[in-house]
Amino acid sequence: MRLSRFFLPILKENPKEAEIVSHRLMLRTGMIRQQSQGIYSWLPLGKRVLDKVNKIIREEQNRAGAIELLMPTLQSADLWRESGRYDAYGKEMLRIKDRQDRDMLYGPTNEEMITEIFRSYVKSYKDLPLNLYHIQLKFRDEVRPRFGTMRSREFLMKDAYSFDIDREAAEHSYRKMFTAYLRTFDRLGLRAIPMRADTGPIGGNLSHEFIILADTGESEVYSHKDFVNFDIPSVDTDFDDVAGLQAVFDKWTSVYAATSEMHDEAAFAAIPEGDRLSARGIEVGHIFYFGTKYSAAMGASVQGPDGKQHDAHMGSYGIGPTRLVPAIIEASHDENGIIWPKSVAPFDVSIINMKAGDQACDAASEKLYAALGKAGFDMLYDDTDDRAGAKFATADLIGVPSQIIVGPRSVASGEVEIKDRKSGARETLSIDAAINKLVASS
Amino acid sequence: MRLSRFFLPILKENPKEAEIVSHRLMLRTGMIRQQSQGIYSWLPLGKRVLDKVNKIIREEQNRAGAIELLMPTLQSADLWRESGRYDAYGKEMLRIKDRQDRDMLYGPTNEEMITEIFRSYVKSYKDLPLNLYHIQLKFRDEVRPRFGTMRSREFLMKDAYSFDIDREAAEHSYRKMFTAYLRTFDRLGLRAIPMRADTGPIGGNLSHEFIILADTGESEVYSHKDFVNFDIPSVDTDFDDVAGLQAVFDKWTSVYAATSEMHDEAAFAAIPEGDRLSARGIEVGHIFYFGTKYSAAMGASVQGPDGKQHDAHMGSYGIGPTRLVPAIIEASHDENGIIWPKSVAPFDVSIINMKAGDQACDAASEKLYAALGKAGFDMLYDDTDDRAGAKFATADLIGVPSQIIVGPRSVASGEVEIKDRKSGARETLSIDAAINKLVASS
Repeated sequence: MRLSRFFLPILKENPKEAEIVSHRLMLRTGMIRQQSQGIYSWLPLGKRVLDKVNKIIREEQNRAGAIELLMPTLQSADLWRESGRYDAYGKEMLRIKDRQDRDMLYGPTNEEMITEIFRSYVKSYKDLPLNLYHIQLKFRDEVRPRFGTMRSREFLMKDAYSFDIDREAAEHSYRKMFTAYLRTFDRLGLRAIPMRADTGPIGGNLSHEFIILADTGESEVYSHKDFVNFDIPSVDTDFDDVAGLQAVFDKWTSVYAATSEMHDEAAFAAIPEGDRLSARGIEVGHIFYFGTKYSAAMGASVQGPDGKQHDAHMGSYGIGPTRLVPAIIEASHDENGIIWPKSVAPFDVSIINMKAGDQACDAASEKLYAALGKAGFDMLYDDTDDRAGAKFATADLIGVPSQIIVGPRSVASGEVEIKDRKSGARETLSIDAAINKLVASS
Repeated sequence: MRLSRFFLPILKENPKEAEIVSHRLMLRTGMIRQQSQGIYSWLPLGKRVLDKVNKIIREEQNRAGAIELLMPTLQSADLWRESGRYDAYGKEMLRIKDRQDRDMLYGPTNEEMITEIFRSYVKSYKDLPLNLYHIQLKFRDEVRPRFGTMRSREFLMKDAYSFDIDREAAEHSYRKMFTAYLRTFDRLGLRAIPMRADTGPIGGNLSHEFIILADTGESEVYSHKDFVNFDIPSVDTDFDDVAGLQAVFDKWTSVYAATSEMHDEAAFAAIPEGDRLSARGIEVGHIFYFGTKYSAAMGASVQGPDGKQHDAHMGSYGIGPTRLVPAIIEASHDENGIIWPKSVAPFDVSIINMKAGDQACDAASEKLYAALGKAGFDMLYDDTDDRAGAKFATADLIGVPSQIIVGPRSVASGEVEIKDRKSGARETLSIDAAINKLVASS
């Protein structure tokens, strides 16, 4: 992508409404724009990151055997009357009347709708286990939306729903998602700690929040330090291996970790003082096993091997992509801007032409652009006539992992400079060597 | 994907609420489920097709220089008061009050919001041309939603918005989208005819609808038969070539084509009788140039090369992916089910194991599944214990382009059968030859 043909509205000033660094950087880099309170557009730079986050989430959901569908945003109130949540859900639910005066709502979550889908089609235990997910907009009318897309009203959620014949099978399904989440956050460059959590309005009796540590987090969390070094389940994980996933789950729940709601002072005090971690955290995922709460209320049962009807045992599993993007920034930035993990960077490489219009600089930049494009890199080529200092600042601000700096002096000797955004390390190389180095490290 | 692990709720009976073939087939194949009147879930089979349609739309928008972002579904009424459309828009607009009693709406289209984004950031003609698009849900509260996702209330739309300094530049932007649309529909396996159209509530004075011919179409259309043979602009089209795109546009608008609203009896009568085409059509795209209608009302101007402020000249360009899927089915099916064009098929190949549990059939099926998976094919492997007849019927119904039939008799001699869904042609081949043939033809 040539910057002259992209839409990257960088703000020169720090927006004063931004209270936390991710919100400030997302506004400054032109990733998002607030359209109404707690309602955002994702501008092209932000959209690219969001797409990469969604792609990783999808890959890990699919690997764990979940199947993607797409439910609508608007739901009928009648569905929620069946589960009893229509009246129970507070003002966070956006209630709507359509032109026929029917009660509708903008879905804050989809347990009811997926249960309706399940009961309409699935009749036998032979069709289980089943896990269906979608990545879809939700709306929760928070009194005080804040921190940009970290806590917005309209937001994207990946929500998966598992159905099993009994508790034992359902707990295996729960551990599949538990394992998939560990892999997902790791691939996003985050170290997330699963913590026993309160189940809240979803209900049920087994639940974990996945929390990343950040000073700006909304939750207080308490855990053992060992989490930082636990191994992440490998790409070859067999999700059908009941004992294998049990071992992953046991390991990751073997030491103390809790949010303030579930905190047990005595258990925490029992940890050697040097191993205690007390910090603030951001919730980036939440999983629930809630048994037959919805299936019993809504008549979602299947015939078991015993010939009798059994209410399906269900779980639900949420990740918020529009919250993950700022969470990644909170975890990875410096005073000059964002430092994207490679896996979600909006571009792989920035090519900075220090003197656009100069024949040698243009030729070298075009050569790099063509060769790296052919090698499959996503590039942002700064071909504008801004001054070099502004280009450097923009490249650091938007945090693309590798920069190639094409300046008149080095180009005269056939060389360019590669800068690593994270370490700041710079290296001067011939153009061909620069191409080879980037290809080799990708 | 193993069918035993997929969610494919095939209906045995023809659903009686379906009035047209695409609606019937989408329900029967478990592609969609109605959740409320005119509001649908896309079940896994449907979601796969929708994703492929969206991918082609994106590729062609990007090729033409449009840049993707993502605007939210909910909008502030104040924005629509600026353009004057809040009161003008009828009951199709879903009006909502949030918990703070603010007037909101579920966007039926995004001219106002994109104009707000534009005016916030773009100040100079040097940043033009600019074309921003998104693929996002819209809601139009139709009195009589019908035909499944062909005319639903919540639907997906790709809407692009172009901004230029003057009419001449804006018309080139219009022709870029005109050309991109020809390529898009062609890649989707459709022959769409651009027809001069009424601009309706969007406004403006230059507009084309893209119509595909289908007996179940809602519009009556009149055109010259030559359209059927016009060349589609190539993948190498240079979208900066003003004269080149003008030539494409001139060619495709050189002979008569109009919907009933714009129909000119005399002009149609002037076509030699054998060349007249009078048929029903489905609108699958609509493009508009509307000049400064929104930019003037909303103060979206840029500084021109003359140092003065100029209201941006705008166009908007819509395609409905959730309508395209049934449109493709209307254009491509037979009495046994859907016949997907390769480009949007939910899977490339169906592997039909006629006798799951039979050692030789299982081994041959697994070999095919592994080898074709490695070659990058998307497969649906029917490993269920249904009887062979039901498996054949399902494979035909869901319309995957190639079927590989693995039966005990042929496998005994090391062979399988390949069936082409479209032509019905069958061929018996060794397993390796079958793999090679599919790889060669992909």
